[in-house]
Amino acid sequence: MLSGNRRTPPHVELICTGTELLTGKINTHTAYVGEKLASIGLTLAADHTVGDDAVMMEKIFTAAFKRSDVIFSAGGLGPTFDDLTREVWARVIKRPLEFQKALLSDIRDKFKQRGIFMPPENRRQAYVLKGAQVLTNDYGTAPGQWIEINGKIVILLPGPARELMPMLENDVFPRLTGLFPDFHTALRKFHMVGVPESVIDQRVRPLVKRFTRLEGCVITHGILASQSIITVKFRVDGPTPVAVSEVATFLEKKFRRVLGSDLFGEEGQSLESVIGAELKQRELTVAVAESCTGGLIAKMLTDQPGASAYFKEGMVTYTNDSKMKRLGVHKETLQKNGAVSKQTASEMARGLRFRAGVTYALSVTGIAGPDGATPQKPVGLVYIGCAGPKRTIVKEFKFQGERKWIRHRAALMALELLRKELHGR
Amino acid sequence: MLSGNRRTPPHVELICTGTELLTGKINTHTAYVGEKLASIGLTLAADHTVGDDAVMMEKIFTAAFKRSDVIFSAGGLGPTFDDLTREVWARVIKRPLEFQKALLSDIRDKFKQRGIFMPPENRRQAYVLKGAQVLTNDYGTAPGQWIEINGKIVILLPGPARELMPMLENDVFPRLTGLFPDFHTALRKFHMVGVPESVIDQRVRPLVKRFTRLEGCVITHGILASQSIITVKFRVDGPTPVAVSEVATFLEKKFRRVLGSDLFGEEGQSLESVIGAELKQRELTVAVAESCTGGLIAKMLTDQPGASAYFKEGMVTYTNDSKMKRLGVHKETLQKNGAVSKQTASEMARGLRFRAGVTYALSVTGIAGPDGATPQKPVGLVYIGCAGPKRTIVKEFKFQGERKWIRHRAALMALELLRKELHGR
Repeated sequence: MLSGNRRTPPHVELICTGTELLTGKINTHTAYVGEKLASIGLTLAADHTVGDDAVMMEKIFTAAFKRSDVIFSAGGLGPTFDDLTREVWARVIKRPLEFQKALLSDIRDKFKQRGIFMPPENRRQAYVLKGAQVLTNDYGTAPGQWIEINGKIVILLPGPARELMPMLENDVFPRLTGLFPDFHTALRKFHMVGVPESVIDQRVRPLVKRFTRLEGCVITHGILASQSIITVKFRVDGPTPVAVSEVATFLEKKFRRVLGSDLFGEEGQSLESVIGAELKQRELTVAVAESCTGGLIAKMLTDQPGASAYFKEGMVTYTNDSKMKRLGVHKETLQKNGAVSKQTASEMARGLRFRAGVTYALSVTGIAGPDGATPQKPVGLVYIGCAGPKRTIVKEFKFQGERKWIRHRAALMALELLRKELHGR
Repeated sequence: MLSGNRRTPPHVELICTGTELLTGKINTHTAYVGEKLASIGLTLAADHTVGDDAVMMEKIFTAAFKRSDVIFSAGGLGPTFDDLTREVWARVIKRPLEFQKALLSDIRDKFKQRGIFMPPENRRQAYVLKGAQVLTNDYGTAPGQWIEINGKIVILLPGPARELMPMLENDVFPRLTGLFPDFHTALRKFHMVGVPESVIDQRVRPLVKRFTRLEGCVITHGILASQSIITVKFRVDGPTPVAVSEVATFLEKKFRRVLGSDLFGEEGQSLESVIGAELKQRELTVAVAESCTGGLIAKMLTDQPGASAYFKEGMVTYTNDSKMKRLGVHKETLQKNGAVSKQTASEMARGLRFRAGVTYALSVTGIAGPDGATPQKPVGLVYIGCAGPKRTIVKEFKFQGERKWIRHRAALMALELLRKELHGR
């Protein structure tokens, strides 16, 4: 079962152990392991988190061992009383733990290098499941373990990311690639913003329905909305790298066509990275005048390394006074239309473009809430302006939700407006 | 089994559904739900993540339903082809899905409010498990569902955090608290920034060792560093609300004493919320001049609802030119000392304080990297200034890590400097 000549990809599960992961600590292992497995053609079928509780651990370990071919078990290899992973796996796979003298002296040496004596508790880390191969831990004292049993693989890994990641990269993933060389994968992602998920769904559905198999490859599709970004993706699994790559290229063209100009980026790209690259390449500059987003757009644009090539300045004009002084918005405009108005947004953008001497100036003024609303101007009403060499455009939005979300969506829509203006749309 | 007179706490599991969570997206629901459950005296026993794969979903749902009393099932309630949660739960608990006309018109109304027609796909969101109570979703179209069956509770929740969180807070957690009133808990958290974790550890260690049981209550302690914030916490579990509250109050005093003025806030407070409340209460005002943090500090300060009471304006002066024009930094200062210098930071803060007419002005100038470093000025070198009514102070920092971290830590340390200046320290 461990040979490379499998016709179905191995079923892989990850189990993370540690009470802290169930009481507030964010688990980043799953995202990391999932992404890495996908990149070597394997799929993470499920992930589980369980506290340092032997009874519950045994239930979860047993179920995963029954269901799957490869089980990653991260955490619970420390020296303390609540590190139970070794013992529980011993029970689940019915293999005793064996003390390895050489391992103990390794662990002792690691303490010596740090100038401290090994606490007696760490002796527990020298116990290994009978038949397991030890995986060296270059960044900690807990060795990993790799055991093949009943045609399945169980891999015990240390919990801290700085120990787990190198062990996976240097040792575990290369071994798995060797064991399952017959699975080749290509992953493509397409990002959009400002278009409802259901509209995108309608557009890609014919492709999703039509292309599920092609040239011996299996194609899986997905669509998801996260943080107001819609992502369409497909994955091609096939018998040879050439087939996979050809199918992926063929499909990519089809998806690009239906997504059209709403498509702002692909895997690894954000709205701000795409805009940044374009501004840089075309030697254009940008500045931002923000009211309700309070600096968020400037922050996003300057998240990009090298932003100083195109980002010149930002103004967070939270008061009427600063809108007049810093941007030259007219007093009459504010009095007549209010700070949250099409006219104010337009004057903010034009004023900033002139004062900062940039190609494009963005402006945002709105009511992020929870206070500040009037019957005419509800929470979520936002005007976004973009002044460029050809025109100044202002769009009105009515965002739903809490302050944080209104600000987030306003920032994204401002960047999307800039992106479309850059493309003359 | 749903009565409040249980002697053992109910077994709670969370299942998150979505292929994206197994291919690179970080799951924050588990941390959030775990923490919230702890705050109402319940414990999350395990968490699972499963892709949008009906076969695997059914296995995971079935196992959790067998093992546990309360199952949270998040995600997969969207309108698209890969949203399968409703159908899979229907199979697992053997209850049909029923179409609810009223629900459909609710969903249609939500689209209408946004000025768009409901796509036909969203009709799927009007199907509810027979016997389930509908949980209103104020921030999206997917309603939640609460169903009690065989003495167990299954709760279907939408996947996006902005929809899931309010539903849990406003509806689900209050219901659970009512159902399981016999578990009493108090949780206290203390936040610090800019002090090494090991220093805090040494200070609280005597308390952690000494107080593990008190007046029939069990006390568990924890310390964790996340995003540069150090959090010390303890949890008191006990037989009566009075005992729990008394023990928590007693211990809280002890912790406050050892943490002293480094303690900036408690559960639910952030550095920016604490500063905001203080500025508001004392009727003081603030403005921010940012170079390397690029708007992040302004963004953080204006994350707070009601920030307009004290936050007046922000300037993201990314260029030398804008530092001179907007803040009045002298050309000679920039020529002699460079933009990243104590002198520039000082002039930025003083210039802004004068121009914006605020009580306190913060300034940040530094090298966030990866480019821009010189042998004398490495990546991570940051000067943070604070000009107030009594003095202008500038501090030098050498932050480690990537651009993102340097910016994040610089913003936190700027806010912490303001906090300490507000207290005259």
